[in-house]
Amino acid sequence: MYGSGHLTELFRVLDLTGVLANATLGGVIARAEKLDPFGFATLAVLSGLGGGIIRDVLLQHGTPVALTDYAYLLTALVGAAISFVIRVQGRAWDRVWPIIDAVALGTWAAAGAAKTLAAGLGWLPAVLLGMITAVGGGVVRDVVLRRIPGVLGGNTLYATCALGAAGVLVLLSTNGHPTVGLVAATIFGAGLCIIARWRGWMLPSA
Amino acid sequence: MYGSGHLTELFRVLDLTGVLANATLGGVIARAEKLDPFGFATLAVLSGLGGGIIRDVLLQHGTPVALTDYAYLLTALVGAAISFVIRVQGRAWDRVWPIIDAVALGTWAAAGAAKTLAAGLGWLPAVLLGMITAVGGGVVRDVVLRRIPGVLGGNTLYATCALGAAGVLVLLSTNGHPTVGLVAATIFGAGLCIIARWRGWMLPSA
Amino acid sequence: MYGSGHLTELFRVLDLTGVLANATLGGVIARAEKLDPFGFATLAVLSGLGGGIIRDVLLQHGTPVALTDYAYLLTALVGAAISFVIRVQGRAWDRVWPIIDAVALGTWAAAGAAKTLAAGLGWLPAVLLGMITAVGGGVVRDVVLRRIPGVLGGNTLYATCALGAAGVLVLLSTNGHPTVGLVAATIFGAGLCIIARWRGWMLPSA
Repeated sequence: MYGSGHLTELFRVLDLTGVLANATLGGVIARAEKLDPFGFATLAVLSGLGGGIIRDVLLQHGTPVALTDYAYLLTALVGAAISFVIRVQGRAWDRVWPIIDAVALGTWAAAGAAKTLAAGLGWLPAVLLGMITAVGGGVVRDVVLRRIPGVLGGNTLYATCALGAAGVLVLLSTNGHPTVGLVAATIFGAGLCIIARWRGWMLPSA
Repeated sequence: MYGSGHLTELFRVLDLTGVLANATLGGVIARAEKLDPFGFATLAVLSGLGGGIIRDVLLQHGTPVALTDYAYLLTALVGAAISFVIRVQGRAWDRVWPIIDAVALGTWAAAGAAKTLAAGLGWLPAVLLGMITAVGGGVVRDVVLRRIPGVLGGNTLYATCALGAAGVLVLLSTNGHPTVGLVAATIFGAGLCIIARWRGWMLPSA
Repeated sequence: MYGSGHLTELFRVLDLTGVLANATLGGVIARAEKLDPFGFATLAVLSGLGGGIIRDVLLQHGTPVALTDYAYLLTALVGAAISFVIRVQGRAWDRVWPIIDAVALGTWAAAGAAKTLAAGLGWLPAVLLGMITAVGGGVVRDVVLRRIPGVLGGNTLYATCALGAAGVLVLLSTNGHPTVGLVAATIFGAGLCIIARWRGWMLPSA
């Protein structure tokens, strides 16, 4: 529906890369909490797939794709396994992680908004569900671990970047440019997130 | 389906007033937690729309109305904005808030039970989902903030009032008086909640 | 669909026994937290029905059976009432509870996996949803009470037993033996859980 075959393929690669990276982060957190392999798998699945599952449950348009498309669950479990076997940390991880995370944020926000529009809903739920797709998994993981979700405050722009990405997607898509919208939204969200982290941009607290 | 046009209109006003007040309360809590604007918006949406969203997700009868009817999300965001800009507190708020909260509780419990019956389900899920509509948003907000939900104990009658309101709605509605039921249920729930707060009525703890 | 009338009947008895026992446990926890009757009912419903409700919400194949089949809600409320009235503890409870809990774990994992297959989904979601059916309620209850869910680590095999039971069900069911699968999966899951508790088997932490 959105874009050519190559673009669809590229998006799938970005999407699953995001799942892998976030699942691995879930595993890193599981290690810090001294959890067992089941705890690693749970946090990996929540971190990597939670946002998309919440989106699909709210959309009420069929079983969440994270359950029906095996690539998602298997990728998340690979992330759990990696972080269980290897001690994922150090300078390389600290350099690569923020970039993959930012790209995943943009990809998920754009894809979530596009899916919501494709389901026949309007711009407002599209923006909301795009944002939820991008940040929902991390929120659920934080809640399960009794942490106040990081997106609620005290960090550099994150949910805001997802909001921006979803907004760009909706704007371009409803004006007849769905393919350009996907690309532009992803780049916008990822770029803003990386710049914000680099420059320390935060929302003002009340 | 339920009642005349005027009544439907009145119910919509009460419903959205409840969303506004609860969303504002979400913002007040966000300020106490020193969250950023996104945190305000999140807590406002959870507090104002969470119960109805949980009800609709459990009903499995289409995308939650809080996502498809724009008035809901926009009202919740207005509540977030109000509490971000204005320091909502003081004597006026302390006097007005309990009353709006009680009316919202009754309205939501009645409307939630009515919607469940309209979806073809029986009295027991109608009572349960009416209650969840009324108290669910506050529970989710509390869980996200790592608080034991207030409805579980230690407060004056609250969930009990929602239970009563939903029960009245089901009783009158299944006996052929859906319109009277909506009005009576809302008044019963709101009245009981206000009296309980005033007289300090609580359930006994075990 | 699965098995003869007698077996269906037996499964229903095991299923509801598990609901009763887990709901009672929810009430026991509510007493420890000094909650009021509404808190007892909430924890009983979450503990006894939460896993099945999550499964049905994720399956997106209609209103959760825990809402439409009255036996479930009523059984959970009976469990809440029992633990509110009687102080459930002591040697008898400590002896009986682990066995009922283990049988419920196996029953729920097997039934959840079977329902997922019956909905037309594949082996991977069947195993996942079987496991979620068995352990999901306890996780939600723990999160509401601000506890790190016990299944994530530090206990004897539990989710692993549900995983095994769901796996056995899928293996036998997709090879043409759904009835044998249900029985074998339940016995396998329950047996493994009991043995693990007795021998202190745990997963290694990272």
